[in-house]
Amino acid sequence: MSYFPNVDKVKYEGPDSTNPLAFKYYNPEEKVGDKTMKEILRFSVAYWHTFTNELSDPFGVGTAIRPWDKYTGMDLAKARVEAAFEFFEKLGVEYFCFHDVDIAPEGSTLRETNKNLDVIVAMIKDYMKDSNVKLLWNTVNNFTHPRFVHGAATSNNADVFAYAAAKVKKGLEVAKELGAENYVFWGGREGYETLLNTDMKLELDNLARFLHMAVDYAKEIGFDGQFLIEPKPKEPTTHQYDFDVASGYAFLQNYDLVDHFKFNIEANHATLAGHTFEHELHYARIHGMLGSIDANQGHPLLGWDTDEFPTDLYAVTLAMVEVLKNGGLGRGGLNFDAKVRRGSFEPEDLFIAHIAGMDTFAVGLKVAHRLLKDGVLDQVLEKRYRSFTEGIGKEIVEGKADFHKLEQYVLDLTEIRNESGRTEEIKATINRYLLNALK
Amino acid sequence: MSYFPNVDKVKYEGPDSTNPLAFKYYNPEEKVGDKTMKEILRFSVAYWHTFTNELSDPFGVGTAIRPWDKYTGMDLAKARVEAAFEFFEKLGVEYFCFHDVDIAPEGSTLRETNKNLDVIVAMIKDYMKDSNVKLLWNTVNNFTHPRFVHGAATSNNADVFAYAAAKVKKGLEVAKELGAENYVFWGGREGYETLLNTDMKLELDNLARFLHMAVDYAKEIGFDGQFLIEPKPKEPTTHQYDFDVASGYAFLQNYDLVDHFKFNIEANHATLAGHTFEHELHYARIHGMLGSIDANQGHPLLGWDTDEFPTDLYAVTLAMVEVLKNGGLGRGGLNFDAKVRRGSFEPEDLFIAHIAGMDTFAVGLKVAHRLLKDGVLDQVLEKRYRSFTEGIGKEIVEGKADFHKLEQYVLDLTEIRNESGRTEEIKATINRYLLNALK
Amino acid sequence: MSYFPNVDKVKYEGPDSTNPLAFKYYNPEEKVGDKTMKEILRFSVAYWHTFTNELSDPFGVGTAIRPWDKYTGMDLAKARVEAAFEFFEKLGVEYFCFHDVDIAPEGSTLRETNKNLDVIVAMIKDYMKDSNVKLLWNTVNNFTHPRFVHGAATSNNADVFAYAAAKVKKGLEVAKELGAENYVFWGGREGYETLLNTDMKLELDNLARFLHMAVDYAKEIGFDGQFLIEPKPKEPTTHQYDFDVASGYAFLQNYDLVDHFKFNIEANHATLAGHTFEHELHYARIHGMLGSIDANQGHPLLGWDTDEFPTDLYAVTLAMVEVLKNGGLGRGGLNFDAKVRRGSFEPEDLFIAHIAGMDTFAVGLKVAHRLLKDGVLDQVLEKRYRSFTEGIGKEIVEGKADFHKLEQYVLDLTEIRNESGRTEEIKATINRYLLNALK
Amino acid sequence: MSYFPNVDKVKYEGPDSTNPLAFKYYNPEEKVGDKTMKEILRFSVAYWHTFTNELSDPFGVGTAIRPWDKYTGMDLAKARVEAAFEFFEKLGVEYFCFHDVDIAPEGSTLRETNKNLDVIVAMIKDYMKDSNVKLLWNTVNNFTHPRFVHGAATSNNADVFAYAAAKVKKGLEVAKELGAENYVFWGGREGYETLLNTDMKLELDNLARFLHMAVDYAKEIGFDGQFLIEPKPKEPTTHQYDFDVASGYAFLQNYDLVDHFKFNIEANHATLAGHTFEHELHYARIHGMLGSIDANQGHPLLGWDTDEFPTDLYAVTLAMVEVLKNGGLGRGGLNFDAKVRRGSFEPEDLFIAHIAGMDTFAVGLKVAHRLLKDGVLDQVLEKRYRSFTEGIGKEIVEGKADFHKLEQYVLDLTEIRNESGRTEEIKATINRYLLNALK
Repeated sequence: MSYFPNVDKVKYEGPDSTNPLAFKYYNPEEKVGDKTMKEILRFSVAYWHTFTNELSDPFGVGTAIRPWDKYTGMDLAKARVEAAFEFFEKLGVEYFCFHDVDIAPEGSTLRETNKNLDVIVAMIKDYMKDSNVKLLWNTVNNFTHPRFVHGAATSNNADVFAYAAAKVKKGLEVAKELGAENYVFWGGREGYETLLNTDMKLELDNLARFLHMAVDYAKEIGFDGQFLIEPKPKEPTTHQYDFDVASGYAFLQNYDLVDHFKFNIEANHATLAGHTFEHELHYARIHGMLGSIDANQGHPLLGWDTDEFPTDLYAVTLAMVEVLKNGGLGRGGLNFDAKVRRGSFEPEDLFIAHIAGMDTFAVGLKVAHRLLKDGVLDQVLEKRYRSFTEGIGKEIVEGKADFHKLEQYVLDLTEIRNESGRTEEIKATINRYLLNALK
Repeated sequence: MSYFPNVDKVKYEGPDSTNPLAFKYYNPEEKVGDKTMKEILRFSVAYWHTFTNELSDPFGVGTAIRPWDKYTGMDLAKARVEAAFEFFEKLGVEYFCFHDVDIAPEGSTLRETNKNLDVIVAMIKDYMKDSNVKLLWNTVNNFTHPRFVHGAATSNNADVFAYAAAKVKKGLEVAKELGAENYVFWGGREGYETLLNTDMKLELDNLARFLHMAVDYAKEIGFDGQFLIEPKPKEPTTHQYDFDVASGYAFLQNYDLVDHFKFNIEANHATLAGHTFEHELHYARIHGMLGSIDANQGHPLLGWDTDEFPTDLYAVTLAMVEVLKNGGLGRGGLNFDAKVRRGSFEPEDLFIAHIAGMDTFAVGLKVAHRLLKDGVLDQVLEKRYRSFTEGIGKEIVEGKADFHKLEQYVLDLTEIRNESGRTEEIKATINRYLLNALK
Repeated sequence: MSYFPNVDKVKYEGPDSTNPLAFKYYNPEEKVGDKTMKEILRFSVAYWHTFTNELSDPFGVGTAIRPWDKYTGMDLAKARVEAAFEFFEKLGVEYFCFHDVDIAPEGSTLRETNKNLDVIVAMIKDYMKDSNVKLLWNTVNNFTHPRFVHGAATSNNADVFAYAAAKVKKGLEVAKELGAENYVFWGGREGYETLLNTDMKLELDNLARFLHMAVDYAKEIGFDGQFLIEPKPKEPTTHQYDFDVASGYAFLQNYDLVDHFKFNIEANHATLAGHTFEHELHYARIHGMLGSIDANQGHPLLGWDTDEFPTDLYAVTLAMVEVLKNGGLGRGGLNFDAKVRRGSFEPEDLFIAHIAGMDTFAVGLKVAHRLLKDGVLDQVLEKRYRSFTEGIGKEIVEGKADFHKLEQYVLDLTEIRNESGRTEEIKATINRYLLNALK
Repeated sequence: MSYFPNVDKVKYEGPDSTNPLAFKYYNPEEKVGDKTMKEILRFSVAYWHTFTNELSDPFGVGTAIRPWDKYTGMDLAKARVEAAFEFFEKLGVEYFCFHDVDIAPEGSTLRETNKNLDVIVAMIKDYMKDSNVKLLWNTVNNFTHPRFVHGAATSNNADVFAYAAAKVKKGLEVAKELGAENYVFWGGREGYETLLNTDMKLELDNLARFLHMAVDYAKEIGFDGQFLIEPKPKEPTTHQYDFDVASGYAFLQNYDLVDHFKFNIEANHATLAGHTFEHELHYARIHGMLGSIDANQGHPLLGWDTDEFPTDLYAVTLAMVEVLKNGGLGRGGLNFDAKVRRGSFEPEDLFIAHIAGMDTFAVGLKVAHRLLKDGVLDQVLEKRYRSFTEGIGKEIVEGKADFHKLEQYVLDLTEIRNESGRTEEIKATINRYLLNALK
């Protein structure tokens, strides 16, 4: 029995193929440097967008045609697992991610919910045994249910804090059980609608308490996956506390949590915060905090999270530059936190969209690799910052200069010579590498 | 001789006055709580916008009619000092702020520039002796000159770093000489135009080295004013490192600078970063980092720094709530980093605009004071967060709860009861206080 | 039996009242000029936000507590009518608006849907007989159902065009039956997600054909209400054809529809399009196209339609200036196309929020009336544009000047004298009128 | 004598060249379809950005190193002409554009200014005789001088209206003299800073009077170039009347000017207005109003006009699709209304940046041509809209359907079948064509 009878295992057919259901650039076993594409890219499917999302929007109900939607309750949950593993297998993706509520229905109590989870987790574990598919990360959904209307770890209601904590406890147990490589915290409701009724200090303190408890519990049960914070500036809240990587980093430092967390960075969240995707990756990388990536893209003219599949070769190439400079993503991966457009509602669109994203990252990887191999960007930096490798610049960097010495150095200087930053030349070079990607 | 012959000393005429050159709400000696308006509000005039700015924009040259513009060079610099103190006196403002280049022309070397500065600083010191006017803060302009095209403390050019350092050295000496209450760092060029040619790690390290040198030098010369970072997300750069208070706080923590700095928060910079003014003030306050305020406002539909005089009673009221909750601004003040519109080019507009801003803050102060005195906002919080003062909430706050205990607490819970956040009621209450401001 | 047992008829208690369930400023029978507040303001309740909306958001399900939600199907529809008229009566609002799907459930065919509608329309008609409540406008929802995924009148699917047309046909019949004063077209799906698969020319032509058919049918059945276009730039589409009033006006002119339509202008749609609310009202007014208003407000820092209840006294005052200058809204009104926040989920919040909005408009009306009565804004314009009432300016306006004459006039001119635009003074004046609103 | 001694005539070196001063993709005589690249692309250099712009920004003075800046006054103006023609020749661009003030200094009266203009226009005419360079369009700068502080054709000051008119009169004479193919109106000050002091109705009426006078005068002197409106939504104004193409089209229709104008569409102005570049081109094209293009790009995260050189292959490809579908630009062209970044201040950067832009358009042209030749986009539309070529759809399009017929058609329909819009597949196809561009 198949949920995608019209789709065969997706194959690499090369750049001249016009088959929308084949890879044109992603060739899993192809070497890029000393690793294969598959090893570097570590693609992951997001359970919620692919198997649960009905494709509604604020002005329209769901349009998605999903063969498993004929079932309900636990039967639906099981059908989704079957569909998911068929999808992973046919697409050739080795990782996936989920929230608790994506995989199993909530019961009337948390005890019941957890029982439902146990059934599905066991089923997933069985499927994993027979496949190469691994759990990149899981998390719990502490934002959809009405109880989280005023927040979860930052709710004004202590009962909600407790409920959210209990859900994360179970989430960590599931992570341990399925061998998750990471565990993610996206604080969809951890923020405020209006400051007028918000005690931000208490809420931030509570958020820190919550995270410390999670750290303690993971240690207790021996879960050694990487903890990840996923920043987003707003939506559904007016202001979300983990606004961007920098504000998340400020929080982690302030509450002595830096050693336990890295960041899961989403492209669309970056742009909503007023940053480029590569900025967020870069900032996290140089602070040793780059953990994993939610691979998608936003629309530059729209002010909400569109979660589009990533097809912009520029953004993806610059993202891969950061990933390669980071020495890869370690236990992290590239999770397609992306949904097909509401108008792309047919089951085949799920494959087409993932293939589009994977091919885009494959090209991005190749271009990034060549940029680095040829030293294009490094040479720019070496030349540009060479003044800090000698003379007064070297003294500055080595801590041997103070205001007295620096003043003496410049007091009678009549000219300082700068050089062009050559932005346009570098952009033309990026285009050249892009257009030569297939050579 | 007068530069503003058409304007007398500005008086308080009360709310029924229609005289644009009189205060309607700002009554300096009026008590609000146990202090006078003047003591709380600590208004400051920005030298650059009021005495130097020609009112150009990217598509038009200056329009400002300024009687002192008949002079040039050092004569112009001196005329501006005369005009400034006439302005301070007539307006009744007791603080001012400046960049080095606002008050004295640059010479062909820094030595010459410093000589020019010395002359004008001495002149200002003389004027200060005979008046109540004090220096809220000074700073140096490390962004206008072409040498700073690629940054100052974060330039790729070590000579520029040195030049910028030498200017700050002099700035601190001037601060000491004039008894400045604070010294401000706005990193207008400390950021990047494109990541493609930027070594962010080196630049941030250098910025930290620069600030540590400033801390050391202030200590050496005995300058005990408060150091302030002024965040701005972008413009002129594509990305400025001190993007907002949170990212500045992340930086200060990371480089062990927290104890030496607070923030100077500008309303228009807040909104450009995607935050409300009150958000930035609040975040700084609860982290003990609220130093001073650049009082202005932006246009919500425009994507650049409009630096308008603050006339929005809502924003100013909520700002004053934060100031009052902070126990005042300490050594900080309310500096009008605001410029008259390019179409408001007559000398009288400078008075009219400052009066508009001061009156707005006077009303904001009164409304904020009453909101706090009546406990309006505190009651909302007390009621809303009461669950953390008892039972499981109290245990959470006191660190007595862990995931086990919290799970036990909720595992069989069938209902969690939340209460309405009453946003609309609170907003109506703010309107009620605003409309009753004059009662 | 009551759906709002905790709320009595809302009374005017005056500006000192602290009762959130009383009017503080809206006094229906109070004269403002020669009309009563009630006659000018013509408030309307939006059926969808108040009786149908569950308060979900893209990351959370509904939170609304609505006593009528214990019913389903047609029983629910009937309960909503009962609740609605209880609400109108208690709130003292004399108009309401609805989409077809707000009042009656859809059947499995349009024939069935229309039967359901007939039942509820008859019930509403009965209720209207016994009350002062009138139908400000109705419309049909051609955007929520999956069939409209690619548009309605601009769908690529002719069957969908036909279906949408048939729904509008019924909508016009309902409008006629209930004596609607207007009929609204909001093209929520009339736009595109991507130009790459869109035939904009055909879609615009079809939209015009659709509207001409509606004009013809209204004439045929003798419905003489005003047709209104409601612009919105985007959301749910990436680009909506009626982007703003100007683009709607371009369309109406191009397709010979100007005589049959005016605009229904929503505050939040204005700001999403990059305009102020007053801009859209003003532009429509001076082109004779101002029909009605959807009274709400957006959040200036959020990029989606927040549909908040209007509490900003500035925006509302400037809106009322436009309304009064327009000689009122004619058959239009002030429809609260606004929803309580998701955190304001209790039934009482529906009253509190409407009261907040009505009070805000009452103040706005009083302030606007005084500004106009005192000629504040007119005097600014008269003085500012006086050069066009004499000399060369008069000749220009009267069409007696050409390039030759104008060149002669200026060729040897050595100075042109402009006067300050006095923006800051005018803003201070607006504040003065606002703060004196209650005097 | 040469102004660019370090740059030789720029040659096409092919896609493997790493020479920043050579074309990699732009091969002027290469055929794309039945025309050469040069014939289709009609590149133009913007005099202001390339020969006049000092590269200042709101927080910094000019950085540009321009060899001709050693001259002043009319000598500078002449040196710029020499530099310009050397630049055109070396770059191989056959069109240029200018404002009056770009080419000659203003005198103390308009008579003097015009005399200066006459000298330089004569010099340019001489240079044009000896070269293939033509004037794509000229215009007058009615926005930089302080006299235009409150507008030009929409100033509140009739003297300013007259002055602006006299400048356009001269501009048209210059256009005639130099054989300009178009004449452009960009209304940089034709809008408002605040509605509070603006008589929009009078201003719009005056703008229409102004444009009618221009039409009349062009006819009188026999200038038959195309008149173009260049929309921009804001900056320097808060709101500019020609906000976007649609609002300009509304204006032209309303004032009976449609037959005399087309649009000059700038990429960065499109995005500031909330539209994609291709949207504005498409809208203009299907209304028969696409005249010419200002080729540049903005930064999606910055809210001001960055006027970057166009290097985004996506935007440029989609723009060229519109151009090719329009059958070319007729008398219009691709004017690089783009400036090098402030950090790219060396003379060579001017070449590098233009080459980057020209190469990008060359690739965009080739990709667009292949997309059209292969019918990729047309096939999507044909398939997608096929329902309007038969049955009920055909009747709708042919005007044979009304609401009665359409209702009959759907009243008992139980299902409407839509098909996926396949957005992700189309985006992958665009990537495929892009990556195959050089094959």
